[in-house]
Amino acid sequence: MMLSDIEIAQKAELKPITEIGASIGIPAEDLENYGPYKAKVSLKLTRELENKPMGHLILVTAISPTPAGEGKTTTTVGLGQALAQLGKKAMICLREPSLGPCMGIKGGAAGGGYSQVVPMEDINLHFTGDLHAITAANNLLAAMVDNHIQQGNALGIDPRRVVWKRVEDMNDRVLRHIVVGLGGHANGVPREDGFDITVASEVMAILCLADSIRDMKERFARIIVGYTYDNKPVTAGDIHAQGAMAALMKDALKPNLVQTLEHVPAFIHGGPFANIAHGCNSVLATRTALHLADYVVTEAGFGADLGAEKFLDIKCRFAGLKPDAAVLVATIRALKMNGGKAKNELTESDPEAVKRGLPNLLRHISNLKKYGLPIVVALNMFPSDTAEEKKVIEDACAEAGVPVAESTVFTDGGRGGLDLGRKVLAAVDKGSAYKPLYDLSLSLKEKIETIAKEIYGAGTVQYDSAAEKELKHIEDMGFGNVPVCIAKTPASFSDDPAKLGAPSGFTLHVREVKISAGAGFVVVLTGKVMTMPGLPKHPAAERIDVDDEGHITGLF
Amino acid sequence: MMLSDIEIAQKAELKPITEIGASIGIPAEDLENYGPYKAKVSLKLTRELENKPMGHLILVTAISPTPAGEGKTTTTVGLGQALAQLGKKAMICLREPSLGPCMGIKGGAAGGGYSQVVPMEDINLHFTGDLHAITAANNLLAAMVDNHIQQGNALGIDPRRVVWKRVEDMNDRVLRHIVVGLGGHANGVPREDGFDITVASEVMAILCLADSIRDMKERFARIIVGYTYDNKPVTAGDIHAQGAMAALMKDALKPNLVQTLEHVPAFIHGGPFANIAHGCNSVLATRTALHLADYVVTEAGFGADLGAEKFLDIKCRFAGLKPDAAVLVATIRALKMNGGKAKNELTESDPEAVKRGLPNLLRHISNLKKYGLPIVVALNMFPSDTAEEKKVIEDACAEAGVPVAESTVFTDGGRGGLDLGRKVLAAVDKGSAYKPLYDLSLSLKEKIETIAKEIYGAGTVQYDSAAEKELKHIEDMGFGNVPVCIAKTPASFSDDPAKLGAPSGFTLHVREVKISAGAGFVVVLTGKVMTMPGLPKHPAAERIDVDDEGHITGLF
Repeated sequence: MMLSDIEIAQKAELKPITEIGASIGIPAEDLENYGPYKAKVSLKLTRELENKPMGHLILVTAISPTPAGEGKTTTTVGLGQALAQLGKKAMICLREPSLGPCMGIKGGAAGGGYSQVVPMEDINLHFTGDLHAITAANNLLAAMVDNHIQQGNALGIDPRRVVWKRVEDMNDRVLRHIVVGLGGHANGVPREDGFDITVASEVMAILCLADSIRDMKERFARIIVGYTYDNKPVTAGDIHAQGAMAALMKDALKPNLVQTLEHVPAFIHGGPFANIAHGCNSVLATRTALHLADYVVTEAGFGADLGAEKFLDIKCRFAGLKPDAAVLVATIRALKMNGGKAKNELTESDPEAVKRGLPNLLRHISNLKKYGLPIVVALNMFPSDTAEEKKVIEDACAEAGVPVAESTVFTDGGRGGLDLGRKVLAAVDKGSAYKPLYDLSLSLKEKIETIAKEIYGAGTVQYDSAAEKELKHIEDMGFGNVPVCIAKTPASFSDDPAKLGAPSGFTLHVREVKISAGAGFVVVLTGKVMTMPGLPKHPAAERIDVDDEGHITGLF
Repeated sequence: MMLSDIEIAQKAELKPITEIGASIGIPAEDLENYGPYKAKVSLKLTRELENKPMGHLILVTAISPTPAGEGKTTTTVGLGQALAQLGKKAMICLREPSLGPCMGIKGGAAGGGYSQVVPMEDINLHFTGDLHAITAANNLLAAMVDNHIQQGNALGIDPRRVVWKRVEDMNDRVLRHIVVGLGGHANGVPREDGFDITVASEVMAILCLADSIRDMKERFARIIVGYTYDNKPVTAGDIHAQGAMAALMKDALKPNLVQTLEHVPAFIHGGPFANIAHGCNSVLATRTALHLADYVVTEAGFGADLGAEKFLDIKCRFAGLKPDAAVLVATIRALKMNGGKAKNELTESDPEAVKRGLPNLLRHISNLKKYGLPIVVALNMFPSDTAEEKKVIEDACAEAGVPVAESTVFTDGGRGGLDLGRKVLAAVDKGSAYKPLYDLSLSLKEKIETIAKEIYGAGTVQYDSAAEKELKHIEDMGFGNVPVCIAKTPASFSDDPAKLGAPSGFTLHVREVKISAGAGFVVVLTGKVMTMPGLPKHPAAERIDVDDEGHITGLF
């Protein structure tokens, strides 16, 4: 019987974080310890490293996710461990998990089995306080906006058009739609409002794109918090909030160092949504890791149509990064689901269902090729997978000219990823011809349509009239030259979660558009995106416990 | 020209926190570092010390506060430094500041001048994350309550009678009165609600009274979150939230170690309101300090009528602590204000105004005597104070049989508190005959009336009918035997902030009563208590900034 993730994590013998830092050349004085096994890296070090050569960057992405799961984070951690076992100086860069969802259904988010980052409980709960700092900075700005309106409203902010929402790192559905400012004139100006979960805050996206405190502060100043009665944007800079916000975020900007179960150093830093934001860990962590290690393995949210697209068109472009290879994670179970098989029948061998699911894998492969990246398919193995099913995938990948490697990193740790590691090293050696998909000089609509047609396979794009109008407004405000960040269901290439496989020729509906002027992209919503989750009938929180020694149970 | 607090703090040469810990016998392995200058002390150490002998406990309290300020925290820090200069093994125990008010008017709260705890910016901003953990635990419980109602409401909670509010560590007036759960049936059950500031949470009061994770968890389970349609209390235990709340709070329970500008070790841990809660730092920090040091100097919120009363009747009683002496801080300026002098005339010498203000000082002295404590008056000196004014106070104290010492710890650090230190040591040597003011076996009304008459000087107590009814309800629920925690304006002994000096014979109005079943006291409100502050027209946040090196300005 295999142990649970938290049991494996708690049995692990961790090395002091200073030792992990030393193993990749971080001097002890540049580590700010948070207990013995977590540390922040000083911004001084990130600056000193800036002119050092950079290692190779490997993106781990996945086919369209299904409830069956693909194991993207586990593969990322396992691949990093495998590269270390192969004698390479390797690092891992991951997003930091949100506390809220740990209390709901999801449990932790720090890899799984023998490919986890540790200390698992700390990473999943408060970690080094980054998300709390984001909450504070976000909500300080919100309080200052409402205070400005209350104290005479010199800027003429229309209370009906405040777009800056409050956030909380908790799944709390009753805060989605609220009315604030009730109770009489001493208690503010009443208006409709709502809370998002913290990771949905533009402050999170900014943390992940900023390269210094100054850059972060300038981005904060550009955040649009609302509009005046005559439709002029009002920014956080107009409210004079950027300095205090940056003061609250000065430590959050420092990358967090932890280790994997096999003592491979890992930065876990920043975790923006992969729909309304770009879904990757921080630029500062990735760049610093590339200066410290020869191979850096990182991941991006959801499937490759969302996560990899944004990693390649937003993050790498902004950060001047040149990725060297992409690993596309697939599972036989998820391909069977994409092939129309029911969730409760996935342990039956069914090569035909795998075959029917293949177009999803192949579409992601051909998409990634458009960015000029060498690709390796990682087949994340489960006990019920059969040789016949595997052969379907191997044949298809051979035909597509893409190497495929089995991965058993969940049960075997780095050892289970040695074949994958070797194939990734070979792919890196082939060299990358990375380029983004589209030019920033295109109009916003042209950019949207390029992604919709080239990546999603859409035939046409249709715009709701409000979205049409807002696109023009955004271009009129001078933000036409930024990347677009499309929010779409991850379950399908289309905007209809029921369309599995590789649908094409469909119409993509753009329902809403908004500018994240601080992050520096236009968010394009193709459906309702839930930015504040709810708790299930029996939340995970009911089962979480801690004993008198501080030993946590039930987190996963 | 004297430097500002933040300038002094930033010029300070700090010692590594491991060195500070070693100076009072804390082994390095029992310190969990948060950067080089902050650490949490392991709960293992707090348990191991439990049977060690205890040092002397000195409470610093004050006359009724005025806008002129008394310098209670500064005196506490300065006295600790003075005792160290006198060769004593001394420690300081303070409350941790709330981040929200730093962004409003108040600036930091870590002492002042040359009697500060450092690193000042960290202590005032996120520190070690305790307040964020409280916010998370509090709001998890709130989300679970609303989720329970949404998911079938098996317990029959009346949505109109949910008493557990959400919290945020921010001054945000529009959140005082809100309506949540709007937007249709998927978004919860609509109801009136509101946010308090985090320090007002019962979770904070519990953190400060719990002696172990188990005790904290049991207290969480007892929290009353609302009432059923048939008026039965519903607890956090009924919602199964206590385990996850305790998991979120497991590190917050560990005392935080920092140092003063003169390297005296200080625990800064917990900071509940001094009106709706008991206003003292954590029991665990105070007890641990008493096991480590020979003299522990601590403070309590507001003036002695509120802070000292609760310290002596709630904290010391619950924690089995025996305080050895009380220091009563007074300033000539505040006594002049209590004597009716206008705020803008305080720099004029006016011995008659001091004389008119004396009854306030004398009432606090005679109150403290009722607890059997030796008392020293600390006269916190300002440049405008004159010898004639000082003599008024010295004569009055001589007549009351209480030693008085000048303190210049703000400008001189510990050296400015040597006379105070010597007098405190002499007072401690006299021995204390501490006993709480009232027996827990009295009825709730008898307890309220004892405090009102003995401490405040009230003639009678009047109860609003709802308060009268709730007192009976609380006794019917079985909570008649707990201490009472009276929320009253700190500006006056009475419930009318305009009545300065030492009013007597007045009627104290009890407007509202509620049970904090987890903390273990009944809160008695004698007026409107603001549990969510607002920002001023020009919040301090507008002036706070940080440069690229992480150097913060404008925090004070």
